Amino acid sequence: MQNICLIIGAGAGIGGNVAKVFAKNDYHVYLTRRSDDIGLKKLIDEINSKGGNASGELLNAIKDDTIENLVHNIEDKLGTINVVVYNLGAQIGNKKLENLTLKQFDLGFKMGTLGLFRLAKTLFPYMEKRGKGTLIATSSTASVRGNRGQHSHAAAMGARRMLCQTLNDEFSAKGIHIVHAIIDGAVDAPDTLGKMLGKEGYEKLRKEKGKENDGLILPKKVAECYYYLSQQHRSTWTNEIDLRAFSDQPWWNTPSDKYNF
Amino acid sequence: MQNICLIIGAGAGIGGNVAKVFAKNDYHVYLTRRSDDIGLKKLIDEINSKGGNASGELLNAIKDDTIENLVHNIEDKLGTINVVVYNLGAQIGNKKLENLTLKQFDLGFKMGTLGLFRLAKTLFPYMEKRGKGTLIATSSTASVRGNRGQHSHAAAMGARRMLCQTLNDEFSAKGIHIVHAIIDGAVDAPDTLGKMLGKEGYEKLRKEKGKENDGLILPKKVAECYYYLSQQHRSTWTNEIDLRAFSDQPWWNTPSDKYNF
Amino acid sequence: MQNICLIIGAGAGIGGNVAKVFAKNDYHVYLTRRSDDIGLKKLIDEINSKGGNASGELLNAIKDDTIENLVHNIEDKLGTINVVVYNLGAQIGNKKLENLTLKQFDLGFKMGTLGLFRLAKTLFPYMEKRGKGTLIATSSTASVRGNRGQHSHAAAMGARRMLCQTLNDEFSAKGIHIVHAIIDGAVDAPDTLGKMLGKEGYEKLRKEKGKENDGLILPKKVAECYYYLSQQHRSTWTNEIDLRAFSDQPWWNTPSDKYNF
Amino acid sequence: MQNICLIIGAGAGIGGNVAKVFAKNDYHVYLTRRSDDIGLKKLIDEINSKGGNASGELLNAIKDDTIENLVHNIEDKLGTINVVVYNLGAQIGNKKLENLTLKQFDLGFKMGTLGLFRLAKTLFPYMEKRGKGTLIATSSTASVRGNRGQHSHAAAMGARRMLCQTLNDEFSAKGIHIVHAIIDGAVDAPDTLGKMLGKEGYEKLRKEKGKENDGLILPKKVAECYYYLSQQHRSTWTNEIDLRAFSDQPWWNTPSDKYNF
Repeated sequence: MQNICLIIGAGAGIGGNVAKVFAKNDYHVYLTRRSDDIGLKKLIDEINSKGGNASGELLNAIKDDTIENLVHNIEDKLGTINVVVYNLGAQIGNKKLENLTLKQFDLGFKMGTLGLFRLAKTLFPYMEKRGKGTLIATSSTASVRGNRGQHSHAAAMGARRMLCQTLNDEFSAKGIHIVHAIIDGAVDAPDTLGKMLGKEGYEKLRKEKGKENDGLILPKKVAECYYYLSQQHRSTWTNEIDLRAFSDQPWWNTPSDKYNF
Repeated sequence: MQNICLIIGAGAGIGGNVAKVFAKNDYHVYLTRRSDDIGLKKLIDEINSKGGNASGELLNAIKDDTIENLVHNIEDKLGTINVVVYNLGAQIGNKKLENLTLKQFDLGFKMGTLGLFRLAKTLFPYMEKRGKGTLIATSSTASVRGNRGQHSHAAAMGARRMLCQTLNDEFSAKGIHIVHAIIDGAVDAPDTLGKMLGKEGYEKLRKEKGKENDGLILPKKVAECYYYLSQQHRSTWTNEIDLRAFSDQPWWNTPSDKYNF
Repeated sequence: MQNICLIIGAGAGIGGNVAKVFAKNDYHVYLTRRSDDIGLKKLIDEINSKGGNASGELLNAIKDDTIENLVHNIEDKLGTINVVVYNLGAQIGNKKLENLTLKQFDLGFKMGTLGLFRLAKTLFPYMEKRGKGTLIATSSTASVRGNRGQHSHAAAMGARRMLCQTLNDEFSAKGIHIVHAIIDGAVDAPDTLGKMLGKEGYEKLRKEKGKENDGLILPKKVAECYYYLSQQHRSTWTNEIDLRAFSDQPWWNTPSDKYNF
Repeated sequence: MQNICLIIGAGAGIGGNVAKVFAKNDYHVYLTRRSDDIGLKKLIDEINSKGGNASGELLNAIKDDTIENLVHNIEDKLGTINVVVYNLGAQIGNKKLENLTLKQFDLGFKMGTLGLFRLAKTLFPYMEKRGKGTLIATSSTASVRGNRGQHSHAAAMGARRMLCQTLNDEFSAKGIHIVHAIIDGAVDAPDTLGKMLGKEGYEKLRKEKGKENDGLILPKKVAECYYYLSQQHRSTWTNEIDLRAFSDQPWWNTPSDKYNF
């Protein structure tokens, strides 16, 4: 059976780079994303054309049975999911309470937390039988503190973090490695940040943050970190890690321009 | 208009005691609970018979429009909700992942997080106009760390904590005081702990924990704390507080019997 | 024997107000501060002239045996120290690493942490025999995150917080209540903030923060909180509490002017 | 100039393994430890005999000028300290408050915190000129919560963590990468754990924890993690990471034998 790395949320940022890095390291990578069939195909083709081994499909993670069917199908027909990266965001931008609907709030939970629960519930029995497996959840500082306008996102990420901890407590001794990765800063990703800021704004931010285009978090480097984590010896596992650019301050620091020295 | 303290989740434990303490301090207390019409009536009658001012209704907090209608009705017909205590738990006992259904997990979120969101969304516009108000959310250590078997509860409470923080950031400067109260330990409450342990087990635990029946958290004392918090001057507000019995260790400590001295 | 509240660090801010509030509540308050004999005497006289019961002395908390002798003397000659407030700061302003001497760093530790250790070591045997007592340590956000320029202060406060936790774990079940109070914001205190900013700057800040002179943390309100905490029933103790002004954001939030909505 | 990795605290556990791993990766490793000249020489010889490049000296980190002279000497005569690992513990076992002397408490601070401050103060100007460098501080769960009997250790580690954060905030944008590594569990190290438990107790624990002798944290794997961290691209730095064995629970979890399922 093939050695699979499944990526839930594989756009051009962290998810797509995880696919490339794991493909180089002899995983068959299985990519899913909600929309953009062309973008998905392009990424799969790129990996395959460089000697990698990739496939994938569009996936609506909030629809009934989609995640469940995906996992069963791969395990039945394609190979062994040894690593899964849950990379679905639940960010909808800053919204005042009055502008945030019940439906949006609920959607944040479905993407941010319930999807991860469904994934673990379906996949962990397979991993438990094998006595090993790795789940890496991309997360954010919204999982550890709630900022203005982030009602939906912070609730979803706070829940995601706690869920990672409860899963870890039940499954760590059974050989399943669970990592909650706190991405603290803007990721240099054209699909998300690029679209949010527009082309000019995006290039401007990149220049400001680091002269060598390394002031934003490079998704390739996040992917390499995930690969390192997936290979950690079980005697020395990481359950929580933070990642940020050298030019940025951690979330817990007062911004530099507020200091009086 | 009357000065109202609304309690969402008013059983015989923290919620019921909050009602009694605020009633003594000249609030009209409005009690809601999901079921047990008789218990609700008894509590209301007890408060009124002692010169207090209480009313209430059964409330299914996960049904559409219930919380919304409740808030509008009180504000329209009864008085000004100056204090609201969100006291709904989402604890369903320890459950292995394989025994926890999607529906149960979703229900935890609806009770634990979505209900609080709906409450804030409906009530805060009233409070904002008045430039003041207090929301106290009863919470638990599951909001800060995820223990085994607590997949649903910890996710819901982690989300609740983050939501309290995002609400606080948007509404504190508008005069709305939001408190996230971490109850760290068993509460001496016949309705919840008593039912869970059975009569004998309950009495046994009470004896073990403290000779003077004060080894469990006394809900009356929690209620007095909530009253203190509701009266804090806005120059000196508390956003997070923990409460535990002297005979218990905080969640972050290794249990005493694990020490080698 | 008299019922004593001992205050280590009793200037015109939190410490002096603690003295006034506890004096009103029938404690003999014993005030100590490092310098300013006249200020100390004035405060004591003020309390006594209003029917309170106060005494005190200058105390150099970093000198050998000073804290130890203080505690023994009071317990031998004056009364029972039922409450002690450790209110010594270790803030020396923001200093770059290159401008911070070894001696300054060590001094921060002596004021911030070692003094508290010496106090507990000397006083707790008395409290343990009586099966009760309260220690409240004034602390700051530097105890939970390290900001730029705060090498000395943050190290001292981080150590203070951990020490409060180890003390709590050993002494809580013996009836000693330990509270770590995180003061998150500027305190409206002429002796410290006033001197730091100068008279004009101080008045300007007060105006900006809150129209009704309540945008800074009012030390009297902190003192009232400490009194509440000292009276908590042992079934329902608080070990950590935060205090901030409604117009300020908690330390974990991104400052308002950084938001894009 | 040679590419140096300096290790403060290089016994047979984490420190010694860091030396071996960095030596394999073309660093000249400079080992220091407080005592055991023979053990030090043996480790250096072992590395050199395998084609590595190692030297070192005994170092009393709490004596005046020792750390300062060490750094200057290496930078003057041997090479460029690109990586430094501060691996000095401050653990003295569990001690009740009454059995812990002022001197011991102060010593904990000198080893745990002041030494790190002195190291940064001396070394960072060199690193800042070069615009790069890495400091990794081995730390423990005592840095995030205070357990019984850990008055000295927890205070020292809490201070260490805060110091890492203040250093990071001042020096990250200048190219210096600071990592606070939380080792959560027993390390399989004959020099420390082995001596503490005795030979038999040590072997017994190893067997219990993991069948394949991987139930304790393997110091070699910690060293490999440190190497990974030292090579992280500056766009994607980790400031805090935890490490524990799969068979252990994180510090925040209730021990398994306390669960009722």
